[in-house]
Amino acid sequence: MKLWEKSVQVNKDVESYTVGRDRELDVYLAPYDVLGSMAHITMLESVGLLTKEELAVLIKELKVIYKLAVSGEFVIEDGIEDVHSQVELMLTRKLGDVGKKIHSGRSRNDQVLIDLKLFTRDQIHSLVNSVTKLIDVLLEQSEEYKNILMPGYTHLQIAMPSSFGLWFGSYAESLVDDLQLLLAAYRICNRNPLGSAAGYGSSFPLNRQMTTDLLGFDSMNYNVVYAQMGRGKMERVVAFAIANIAATLSKLSYDACLYNSQNFGFIKLPDEYTTGSSIMPHKKNPDVFELTRAKCNKLQGLPNNITLITNNLPSGYFRDLQIIKELFIPSFEEMNDCLHMVAQMMGEVKINEHILDDPKYLLIFSVEEVNRLVLEGIPFRDAYKQVGLEIEKGNFSHNKEVHHTHEGSIGNLCNDSIDILKQQIVDQFEFEKVISAEKKLLGEN
Amino acid sequence: MKLWEKSVQVNKDVESYTVGRDRELDVYLAPYDVLGSMAHITMLESVGLLTKEELAVLIKELKVIYKLAVSGEFVIEDGIEDVHSQVELMLTRKLGDVGKKIHSGRSRNDQVLIDLKLFTRDQIHSLVNSVTKLIDVLLEQSEEYKNILMPGYTHLQIAMPSSFGLWFGSYAESLVDDLQLLLAAYRICNRNPLGSAAGYGSSFPLNRQMTTDLLGFDSMNYNVVYAQMGRGKMERVVAFAIANIAATLSKLSYDACLYNSQNFGFIKLPDEYTTGSSIMPHKKNPDVFELTRAKCNKLQGLPNNITLITNNLPSGYFRDLQIIKELFIPSFEEMNDCLHMVAQMMGEVKINEHILDDPKYLLIFSVEEVNRLVLEGIPFRDAYKQVGLEIEKGNFSHNKEVHHTHEGSIGNLCNDSIDILKQQIVDQFEFEKVISAEKKLLGEN
Amino acid sequence: MKLWEKSVQVNKDVESYTVGRDRELDVYLAPYDVLGSMAHITMLESVGLLTKEELAVLIKELKVIYKLAVSGEFVIEDGIEDVHSQVELMLTRKLGDVGKKIHSGRSRNDQVLIDLKLFTRDQIHSLVNSVTKLIDVLLEQSEEYKNILMPGYTHLQIAMPSSFGLWFGSYAESLVDDLQLLLAAYRICNRNPLGSAAGYGSSFPLNRQMTTDLLGFDSMNYNVVYAQMGRGKMERVVAFAIANIAATLSKLSYDACLYNSQNFGFIKLPDEYTTGSSIMPHKKNPDVFELTRAKCNKLQGLPNNITLITNNLPSGYFRDLQIIKELFIPSFEEMNDCLHMVAQMMGEVKINEHILDDPKYLLIFSVEEVNRLVLEGIPFRDAYKQVGLEIEKGNFSHNKEVHHTHEGSIGNLCNDSIDILKQQIVDQFEFEKVISAEKKLLGEN
Amino acid sequence: MKLWEKSVQVNKDVESYTVGRDRELDVYLAPYDVLGSMAHITMLESVGLLTKEELAVLIKELKVIYKLAVSGEFVIEDGIEDVHSQVELMLTRKLGDVGKKIHSGRSRNDQVLIDLKLFTRDQIHSLVNSVTKLIDVLLEQSEEYKNILMPGYTHLQIAMPSSFGLWFGSYAESLVDDLQLLLAAYRICNRNPLGSAAGYGSSFPLNRQMTTDLLGFDSMNYNVVYAQMGRGKMERVVAFAIANIAATLSKLSYDACLYNSQNFGFIKLPDEYTTGSSIMPHKKNPDVFELTRAKCNKLQGLPNNITLITNNLPSGYFRDLQIIKELFIPSFEEMNDCLHMVAQMMGEVKINEHILDDPKYLLIFSVEEVNRLVLEGIPFRDAYKQVGLEIEKGNFSHNKEVHHTHEGSIGNLCNDSIDILKQQIVDQFEFEKVISAEKKLLGEN
Repeated sequence: MKLWEKSVQVNKDVESYTVGRDRELDVYLAPYDVLGSMAHITMLESVGLLTKEELAVLIKELKVIYKLAVSGEFVIEDGIEDVHSQVELMLTRKLGDVGKKIHSGRSRNDQVLIDLKLFTRDQIHSLVNSVTKLIDVLLEQSEEYKNILMPGYTHLQIAMPSSFGLWFGSYAESLVDDLQLLLAAYRICNRNPLGSAAGYGSSFPLNRQMTTDLLGFDSMNYNVVYAQMGRGKMERVVAFAIANIAATLSKLSYDACLYNSQNFGFIKLPDEYTTGSSIMPHKKNPDVFELTRAKCNKLQGLPNNITLITNNLPSGYFRDLQIIKELFIPSFEEMNDCLHMVAQMMGEVKINEHILDDPKYLLIFSVEEVNRLVLEGIPFRDAYKQVGLEIEKGNFSHNKEVHHTHEGSIGNLCNDSIDILKQQIVDQFEFEKVISAEKKLLGEN
Repeated sequence: MKLWEKSVQVNKDVESYTVGRDRELDVYLAPYDVLGSMAHITMLESVGLLTKEELAVLIKELKVIYKLAVSGEFVIEDGIEDVHSQVELMLTRKLGDVGKKIHSGRSRNDQVLIDLKLFTRDQIHSLVNSVTKLIDVLLEQSEEYKNILMPGYTHLQIAMPSSFGLWFGSYAESLVDDLQLLLAAYRICNRNPLGSAAGYGSSFPLNRQMTTDLLGFDSMNYNVVYAQMGRGKMERVVAFAIANIAATLSKLSYDACLYNSQNFGFIKLPDEYTTGSSIMPHKKNPDVFELTRAKCNKLQGLPNNITLITNNLPSGYFRDLQIIKELFIPSFEEMNDCLHMVAQMMGEVKINEHILDDPKYLLIFSVEEVNRLVLEGIPFRDAYKQVGLEIEKGNFSHNKEVHHTHEGSIGNLCNDSIDILKQQIVDQFEFEKVISAEKKLLGEN
Repeated sequence: MKLWEKSVQVNKDVESYTVGRDRELDVYLAPYDVLGSMAHITMLESVGLLTKEELAVLIKELKVIYKLAVSGEFVIEDGIEDVHSQVELMLTRKLGDVGKKIHSGRSRNDQVLIDLKLFTRDQIHSLVNSVTKLIDVLLEQSEEYKNILMPGYTHLQIAMPSSFGLWFGSYAESLVDDLQLLLAAYRICNRNPLGSAAGYGSSFPLNRQMTTDLLGFDSMNYNVVYAQMGRGKMERVVAFAIANIAATLSKLSYDACLYNSQNFGFIKLPDEYTTGSSIMPHKKNPDVFELTRAKCNKLQGLPNNITLITNNLPSGYFRDLQIIKELFIPSFEEMNDCLHMVAQMMGEVKINEHILDDPKYLLIFSVEEVNRLVLEGIPFRDAYKQVGLEIEKGNFSHNKEVHHTHEGSIGNLCNDSIDILKQQIVDQFEFEKVISAEKKLLGEN
Repeated sequence: MKLWEKSVQVNKDVESYTVGRDRELDVYLAPYDVLGSMAHITMLESVGLLTKEELAVLIKELKVIYKLAVSGEFVIEDGIEDVHSQVELMLTRKLGDVGKKIHSGRSRNDQVLIDLKLFTRDQIHSLVNSVTKLIDVLLEQSEEYKNILMPGYTHLQIAMPSSFGLWFGSYAESLVDDLQLLLAAYRICNRNPLGSAAGYGSSFPLNRQMTTDLLGFDSMNYNVVYAQMGRGKMERVVAFAIANIAATLSKLSYDACLYNSQNFGFIKLPDEYTTGSSIMPHKKNPDVFELTRAKCNKLQGLPNNITLITNNLPSGYFRDLQIIKELFIPSFEEMNDCLHMVAQMMGEVKINEHILDDPKYLLIFSVEEVNRLVLEGIPFRDAYKQVGLEIEKGNFSHNKEVHHTHEGSIGNLCNDSIDILKQQIVDQFEFEKVISAEKKLLGEN
């Protein structure tokens, strides 16, 4: 069934080429398609385009379809083009012609827009939970190992004293900044495109503020041409936010692979978390971190991939936008998998508490010594030269203690401030507003 | 002069290769380097690492250098490696050894971090002004031409009635969403890295909250390892926000080039804004929009370019980060130039008020007709088929009026709501906080 | 079964995370894995690491597995990690311990390298066929419509006379250049990595020249460290070649969408190749070309995606490389689908033979007129000014004929030269060499 | 002076915005612009569009301008738009109106096409020389240090014996494959676009084969629409080849930074090739390799940047293409700088000949031991398990010798085969054909 079929049959190759992976991907959108339709027809009734009775039977049946969708039993049948057609078909099978009325005052263009937005804000919610959980693991480990020193590197050269407290905590704070970007993506996402129809609005007396409220959006995408322009743009902005999280995890994974190498030996993964080699019996490889790095590097390509598809298209809908779904929809699961796995691994990783026993790390204390001389009154540049010459001659020595006291340093990690910042950002998402609106629409509260 | 020079002379080829374009690019950072130093030494004095007298002479001289920097007279001399070395050299030439003391408790790593952050937040301020100005032009034009209809396209096929009111307004609203992302980038930028030294903090009793307040930052980057990790990341996040604005302008430029083509003829550029051909005497080319499109498409590559440089580097400083400056620093001027030029062009563009006189555009009213039948009681799918068959037979007709009344439609543009949303976002930047802090530091208030 | 399993059980979450999509993707590699093993064990026997009898039973069984693989019946069983393990399992089930011997002198690293290379060169062969077929369609259409004029555009402004002969032919020649790049990718691919083992060679007395000859490679990847380094690099280079073809098809699709728009009306797609709108009954949308454009734009992201994964990894194998398969393996089918669909569409497209009846296209003859004046002796610059002023005054006229005679112009398309160039490049692939080697190995000739 | 100026003055802001960086970048094209004009007018004379005398005076004056251009004295004057206008201006100043005749039968579109192609093939020649020189250094060092073992890594885990012979040689062979791709780019570049005019050919009886021969091109770009379509495409293809070389150098630089770290200590850079830290007196940083890595990673973004500009533009010239010059022209110098610096560094790097004295590297011999057992008759899988258990118990031992004999292994590097392959590819460029044509045109042979 095609909503637009005319008197000419479409070529079968063309049909299969154009449907593409839609029937597989649209299943992800099914519950959101139903939610959007419920809000839309509630509004239609309020402006006189549906009767109370029509609304009642449609809502009842849509709730049935919603349950199928969330339980994973919703399928798009052979020959049915997309999720919108499938839902309409299920309604008309059960209710007859009244089923067709859910499409009044809409186009598939604003229908897929609303589906993608409702899907995405749900997925962002899930990402926020995963990121928050990982932050908590990292902050716990930072506190746990705050007294264990490790060398800090610049240029991959041994540089200055660092600590596992700093290392774990740095990635926690990085993820907090990543939440900040995700919040902006959420704000851009959480605006209602419904009512923009094919991108130019409708001659029906729609009440867009009503659907905005029913679905818990922050506001509507006002201008209907802009609402359509948001397709591809919303995805790209969310992809920026995903890429940002992915960048943090990729860097953390790189550190983990490096520190797990025998040439560093700073951390060790439990045996059950490593893999072996088919020809080298001694290997315990950090495949989990390598794969996380690669998956996250793949995710970092997402914004550019979306840009390549949408770029240099003038305004107005194009079928090109369909292909974005292939890239965009699976990215949330990929990102979440990485977040979960890293949280698990970072909670289990074993720390080497005796790194600094190796004499090659003595040089990390050279700045401590320079600073000590400065505090004794020697100008910095002179102290620097003096210590430098000692090192060149091989005379440098220092005890293995550090007294760093300022904010964010080894002795004063400020993990509580990072945690507060995290919570402040999470609170701004106001997920409960959305959940409450959706529950109300489903009659669940 | 190199701050780190030891007893061995560096190879001259290596020196030129490593300095690269720093002496040219660092000039952009000079005023910010001075501001950062003023805050830093004010703090040093407060914790006893400078005397009151030393602070006074240094601040006085730094103000002199600041004025040179903002007036464009600051130069990095031959043989001087970077802006930090040049400032220190100017101080020691004038004040002797006390000049060297500004580097206590710092590394060039946190010095360039603070320079880049102060530079970037200033540039973001400038971008916000340019974007806001363009939004205002677009909203004005939207109001001016709100009654002029044009065909709306989907699939580049004539589709439904649109209007110049919608067209101008859509890009205004797009830019408002772009400000939202820019705000997140600003928040991530506007946190103080000073005190992170080489990325592992310092054994000096620094007061990082004090420099945070003196420079008007929202907070500090707490964890010192994260503060260093922000290099490259902050640039990438800001690049996301720039790419987003660029995407909006690129699309607008594409529309303008298309609509200016004789095959559309929707808009016309004044002759003095077009260029000609060396062999075709009739040409009046929209080069300005073509170049804007290309410049903006180039800018859309910025995030990926930064990612390619920073990706798969473990934590800790690497010299690689220097190359990011070549890409990042010029991008603000490029973006601003495009914003100014588009604002100028969009204010001057001539609108064709008689587009719909061409009979080929009649079909845009087919949905109006379908909807009219629906309002008369015919089910949508049946009305759709009826009008479709009329069109196939060549019998379709309709008057050229539209009555779209819902929010965001031709008859109800909601430009005021877009303007309010814009102002709400702009207010959240709180630029006055930063300006006031900088003025206080410079003794200008 | 894992080839490397030791005394500790791997965590189940880790197992599922690390296997990822390998069991699905490795099925594509199965026939090539078998071929590689046949060559490898033939060589092992020749250097005394297998007996004649062992070789005979293994080859016999591998042929059985090969048939399963090419007929699509090969599956990787639950709990089996990858194609290599599955093949070895099938051999040992049937033949006992001798089955394990196929892994002597190899690692999974050079095994997957050989699989990917044999797979890729086969896929490139298929791409060359598809590209060649499309070139033939385009050249045929170019000849068919060589006398039909159309306006040529610069800056999307009506510029000069062009023709459908030129338009079709230009894309044919573009694809010929694309074959040139594909040939380079093929050369880089068609070198033997077998014997590099885990990337550092083997202490067994392998004969790599023998496997090179048995598999029909041009030469070996000599240095074993480089052989391993080729993983990811070969894919990236092939991705360049695919991206190049995709760029040509994307541009052709853009032209087709534009020319199919009512504002141009240069071409028309048969009704059975277009789709409709759910709300606009008059629409006949060129979805096939829009989707081709988007699919090809997605494919143009492939090189960057591979680069993001491999970049900044030092030499030596990393598990990261596994993720490249997710991106690389499906790209051939996607590219081939687009090539087939475009060939079908370009063969069926309807041409508007009366474009120039529209008076707005008269201006394309302005240069003809300038040149006519030049041939009469007026200096070019003066002729240019004279015609320019006529146009400004509205006095310009010209007949609608062109006499372009030079190579590659409207009257002299040089399609035969393009066809010859195509054939010269295709011949250099020498696919028959490879086919003949594979047949010999399978005992099929 | 603008070649296309009509009666209306162009807005000054627009003029500056549209000229952009052309006057700076076009200077790189000046000698090639002159060469192209010499070939063009020689052909014009042959078809009767110039007299013998006109040709003689023009050629004489163009040779003067050519000398200025190659000596660096050619400047584009204030108010002159581009290189083409400047050359024409210089001719008319000296020769009067005959100077204008060089533009007959051309457009600036094919003029800049020919300039870019002649420039690019010259730059490719220079790259081939630099790459070849680096290959020679690497092969020399490979031979020099062929007996020095080092650990080979997989997953950054100590894996198997490798050698400096293998390490140096692997990058040599990688660059040979990179030459293969560069050769394809050269073939695509080295075809003549002259005569395509504005992209639709000319009504003049041009002889394109003649200019093809005069300029030493392999053939012409036949179809004139394709010739114009090559703008942007040629640059992208060459960018692929540059990105490929950059990828090799980036990886080599990563290895060098890692091996130079105190945690590896495999190589050491001479002191005069390292830089220090402003606060850590013991640092000797490998900035040269870090900057090379970053510069090369930046260069790897080039193809995507060009794609973003050209993608989704229909056929025909657009002003967008001008911006590509900003990205493309400087990339050759950047690539060459990196190649020279790496050649210098790789020739000077100090090798640690005692790496394997460290007992942690003993495990690299585990596969040797497994293979030894296999050669004694124990099945591989059993030998693997036996050695694995020994390692787990801490009982593993082995002497530090390897006997790898097969092609491409530690004991049989095949550097001569790599060198032969290099030479075979270099020969196919046939640079002497081009040089000889250019000399003949300049009357220099």
